[in-house]
Amino acid sequence: MDLEIPTRFERDWNDQADTPVRFAVIGLGGFARNTALPAIEAADYCETTVVVSGSPEKAREVAEEFDADRALSYEEYGAGEGSEAYDAVYVCTPNALHLPHVETAADLGKDVLCEKPLEATADRAERLVAACEDGGVTLMTAYRMQTARSIRWLRRQISDGVVGDPVRIDGEFSFSLLDGGDPDQWRIDPDLAGGGALMDIGVYPINTARFVLGEDPIAVRATAHSTRPAFEGVDEHVTAQLEFPAAVTATCAASFGAASASRFAVTGTEGRIVVDSVFGIDDDREITVETDGGTVTFDATAPSEVREEFDYFAARGESGPDGRHGLVDMRITEAVYDSSERGKRIELRG
Amino acid sequence: MDLEIPTRFERDWNDQADTPVRFAVIGLGGFARNTALPAIEAADYCETTVVVSGSPEKAREVAEEFDADRALSYEEYGAGEGSEAYDAVYVCTPNALHLPHVETAADLGKDVLCEKPLEATADRAERLVAACEDGGVTLMTAYRMQTARSIRWLRRQISDGVVGDPVRIDGEFSFSLLDGGDPDQWRIDPDLAGGGALMDIGVYPINTARFVLGEDPIAVRATAHSTRPAFEGVDEHVTAQLEFPAAVTATCAASFGAASASRFAVTGTEGRIVVDSVFGIDDDREITVETDGGTVTFDATAPSEVREEFDYFAARGESGPDGRHGLVDMRITEAVYDSSERGKRIELRG
Repeated sequence: MDLEIPTRFERDWNDQADTPVRFAVIGLGGFARNTALPAIEAADYCETTVVVSGSPEKAREVAEEFDADRALSYEEYGAGEGSEAYDAVYVCTPNALHLPHVETAADLGKDVLCEKPLEATADRAERLVAACEDGGVTLMTAYRMQTARSIRWLRRQISDGVVGDPVRIDGEFSFSLLDGGDPDQWRIDPDLAGGGALMDIGVYPINTARFVLGEDPIAVRATAHSTRPAFEGVDEHVTAQLEFPAAVTATCAASFGAASASRFAVTGTEGRIVVDSVFGIDDDREITVETDGGTVTFDATAPSEVREEFDYFAARGESGPDGRHGLVDMRITEAVYDSSERGKRIELRG
Repeated sequence: MDLEIPTRFERDWNDQADTPVRFAVIGLGGFARNTALPAIEAADYCETTVVVSGSPEKAREVAEEFDADRALSYEEYGAGEGSEAYDAVYVCTPNALHLPHVETAADLGKDVLCEKPLEATADRAERLVAACEDGGVTLMTAYRMQTARSIRWLRRQISDGVVGDPVRIDGEFSFSLLDGGDPDQWRIDPDLAGGGALMDIGVYPINTARFVLGEDPIAVRATAHSTRPAFEGVDEHVTAQLEFPAAVTATCAASFGAASASRFAVTGTEGRIVVDSVFGIDDDREITVETDGGTVTFDATAPSEVREEFDYFAARGESGPDGRHGLVDMRITEAVYDSSERGKRIELRG
């Protein structure tokens, strides 16, 4: 087949940065401590100089562990304390708390890397984006799949026509949140998360579909529901069917109450590429390419996409997933819930 | 894991039949000649004694090749000629011609094995089922997946709880119909087929989902569309989302204009079983079972499901996919088109 299988996956963006970006990390939950802070430490152009938490003890501990200069409370951060010590903020609090922290950053003239989804509702996400635009600061939505080298490679194959014209995308991400997990966590609190499986993990297949196609969907049909009391008020399971302009149908499924599954398949007129597993943090991805020329499967081992994400933000080689890009997903997720409740195909504004 | 991997897949139905069933095979297209007639020849309890075709020459040739006693035209068959020479009919004409041939069989008191889908429209399928009920003859819809031993094994695993409670089903069946195929074939003629990819191949994942769950869907959301002139008036691509009573969402996709894909996955609360490839005729199926106990992949080699289907029909060990069962799929396919056109979730009558 006309396919060059990469033995190494390279950075395909301009990774020159003059000086390291000094980060204030806002919110010190499990993802920040186990994944983001180590990624910043490993990154070429980033360092953590400030950490912010609601728990002074946790802030001090984490500051010590990651060699940060300052440990702040949310109130201190909100009042602009220590702002000379950082250039940008990385916001990884619960979704519904993104807005005030980003507004603070915008007021202080600090660039923002904000976790996905941008906020708990599309309205609040719009205010968040507006705050950054008004403040003249850069806003990037932290879609780590977009900096995973293997997924960027996949996007190039799709755009180069390796599978012909894309026809269908199937993305799924599920695991059992309650197996050993805390049932009181914010990810299934409707006020803090804005939803359940869709908001936390369903956005991965949705955003990855947008990314590899280079297009945004025009309509949504979806089913979202829960069966167990722990998921009252949020979606335990969701399946969304997205219509893209070039007649591609993407089925994006997510579940907090199913066995682990993490797979992304693009089927086109001339072939098919499957990544399995795909959406876990720094997953050991395996890629299968099927075309008329044959089938080949290979390991897509690449450096941590979270480290890549921080360097990508620091280097600003291209616009990447900015605030407007993140806002599109908020409108999609809102349409998913709307479609499920009303039993209708929901058109998305262009 | 608590799973016994079969080294051989066995018949799990009562396969005793007293005397061979003598078949009249109605319609001598590629599937009849290449697959069904050889399967009848190989079956334990079946033989072909009569063949019926619109082409006298083809009928004579096929009768000679498969050692049938009589070669009839449709008119001769319709007039009851040679009816003493067969016990049952196997109808594999284009969909929209099933009804008159089944009506003839019912009038003659002959049992019927009718290809899927039952007819081109739900209304005609209802008349077909009513004819058999009025005539007191057995009607079986030829869903070969239901007699594939590996799929019957899958159904038992699901029912035994190997994956816990099913949460999600993903079934897909696609290939490029026009690559070397005749663009004028009846499968994409709306009058003869009643639709496109959905009617011919989309019914496989839909029916297999019903079969392994032992339930029928209660609502449908779907997208059906075509992009190329050859598929004008029919669906080249279709993706249907079926809601089942126990909150299972099944996504069933089919395409006549995409690279080959044939996969069926059942994801439950405790595990996941994937069959790949699954829907091709007598496919070399490979089954992967993923549970907390580990992952195991094995070849699901089994005798031809088409041969099994004929013996199953002959033995009548259980009711199997009868006319009413086939009719449910006709109502589902109608709801799929309706949902796609109207942009609505369509509820199915119970």
